[in-house]
Order: sequence, then structure tokens, then C-alpha cells
Amino acid sequence: MNVQTLRDHIRDIPDFPTDGIMFKDITPLLADAQAFHDSINALANHYDATGVDLVMGAEARGFILAGALAHRLNAGFIPARKPGKLPHNVTKAEYDLEYGTDTLEIHTDAIAENQRVLIVDDVLATGGTASAKARLVEELGGTVVGMGFLLELGFLNGRSKIADYDVYSLIQY
Amino acid sequence: MNVQTLRDHIRDIPDFPTDGIMFKDITPLLADAQAFHDSINALANHYDATGVDLVMGAEARGFILAGALAHRLNAGFIPARKPGKLPHNVTKAEYDLEYGTDTLEIHTDAIAENQRVLIVDDVLATGGTASAKARLVEELGGTVVGMGFLLELGFLNGRSKIADYDVYSLIQY
Repeated sequence: MNVQTLRDHIRDIPDFPTDGIMFKDITPLLADAQAFHDSINALANHYDATGVDLVMGAEARGFILAGALAHRLNAGFIPARKPGKLPHNVTKAEYDLEYGTDTLEIHTDAIAENQRVLIVDDVLATGGTASAKARLVEELGGTVVGMGFLLELGFLNGRSKIADYDVYSLIQY
Repeated sequence: MNVQTLRDHIRDIPDFPTDGIMFKDITPLLADAQAFHDSINALANHYDATGVDLVMGAEARGFILAGALAHRLNAGFIPARKPGKLPHNVTKAEYDLEYGTDTLEIHTDAIAENQRVLIVDDVLATGGTASAKARLVEELGGTVVGMGFLLELGFLNGRSKIADYDVYSLIQY
């Protein structure tokens, strides 16, 4: 399935979650077995030769693609979560929202020294959470081998925040 | 990897999320590439011959296994989410908590008539959310072909709430 056909499975939802936002709803793509399968494989093919030990996904939607990619790449999966959700000792990273800040947590023992970590999410928007995830990986001694996204909202210029990394997005807006 | 070895990758966390609860932390299993891979394949092998069109997972942790299984089974993925998270028209199901109730939502157009849906979660506890998910599938005209769990807390007797379904758990407590 080519990129244009994948894009046809993404639905525009006006004014969600707030007025003036055109939300890109990926659920029709996920629900289509062929589109979902081809998307995961296209991302995996980009990283197959890289050597990925762990795939990191952030809750909630990031878990879907990151879990599938971890299995496809024969890698482990590590979750980044909102505060208070992980049960063991955590390392935290803050990131900016439009108003204020938010925090992501990861288990402090989630990554061994020099493990190679692929960061995966459904959407690259401002790059704030991707940048926070990269800081968490590096603080624990891991190496960020890439950042993979199903779709990228290029007009938000998220790449500028993660310019040091190999960023790959399947679908561009 | 046999079931005992998988079980060795699950970590007991006392008093999480509240005093007196022994939490089963699956993150060491997910982070171990072989344990994660073997768990997904064991669940998939149980359903390979069943004919699965869609795998349903609930946020947040349920997304990890359900996403991987959907890819492994060449099925689509559909998310059940907490209220207000899904952007399009939704169908809701309530379920009981220890005190009060909570709600899961699914897109009303997520399942076509007679599609075969596998419900997947990390833990079978009281069976309340699994039962709510089954009601959502059936309300939309789908067929629940099974419910797969990574682990089951048998002492909570969740199976009694979902006795009408093919329930399969990889690891029993």
C-alpha cells in the first residue's frame, strides 16, 4: 500500500480537541489490517539494519505502534508514562505545553548502558515529547538510534527540536 | 521460553497503587526481547486458526500487547478509550470499580457487522473491563472470538464475569 493510500485512511476531525484544531484521526488506518500491517512494516524496514534493542513508546497512543514495532523488530518494549503510573523507581523529563509543562517518566532500570533505543510515536507535532523521551534514554545511558512516526505535522516544525536524531515519518502533512 | 521463565520476568511491587496491593509489574517482561516476542507468539498461536479481523485493546497498557498481536495476526487494531479521548462518534459501556463506576468508549464505526474481534489485555483481574469491552463489540454487531491475557489473577475470579467467552491467559496467579 503506497503512502497516498495510507493517507486516505486518516480522517480529519475539525475542532478536536478544541476549536480551530484539525485533528488527524489515525483510527481508520489502525483498523484496516492491510494499512496497519504495511505501516508497521514500512517503519520496521527503515530500521531493520540499524540494530534496535528496545522500542520506546509513550502512553497512550504511542503504545500501539511501538508495541507492534518492538515485536516486528525482535526488540524489547519500554513504556514512557505520565506521572505516577509506573510502579518502580522512575527518571523524569519535563516538556513544554502551550500553557505550562508536563512530565514523562520511565523506569530507571528500563535501559542498560549502551542499549540502542528506537523512539516511536504516532504523530510528530511540536517535537516536545520526542525531545523529552530522547533525554530520558540518554540520561539512563542508552543511545537513541532513531525516531519513527506514522505521520508528521510539518507546519509545526517539530524537527527543529530533534535535529540531532535520525527522524523518519511515513506520512507528511 | 516456557511459562515459568516468562513468569520470572514479572516483578512483584508491594503496596502499589495502594497499601496492601501486590502489583504484578510486567515491564521487565516487555523489555526483554525474547520474553516479549515469545509471549506475543504464544497468544497469537492460540488464535491463529480462529480468524481474527480486529484486535481490541484498552488504554493504556492494553494497547501494547493488542497492537503487537494485531500486527502478528494480520488483523486491524481498534482502541477502547477513556471518555473524551476518541475524536469521532462513540458508543459507551460502564463497568464497576471498587467504589463507583468507570466508562470505556469505542468509535461507533470501529466494527463492521459480523467482524470477528479478539479482545486483548495485559491482566485479567475482576473481569469488569473485559466484560464492558465484549458488550461494546456486540452492540456494534461484531463477534467476540476470544479474550487473551498475558496474566490472570485467578484469585479475583474474573472468569466468572466472562464465562460465555473463550478466555486464554498465558500466566496464572
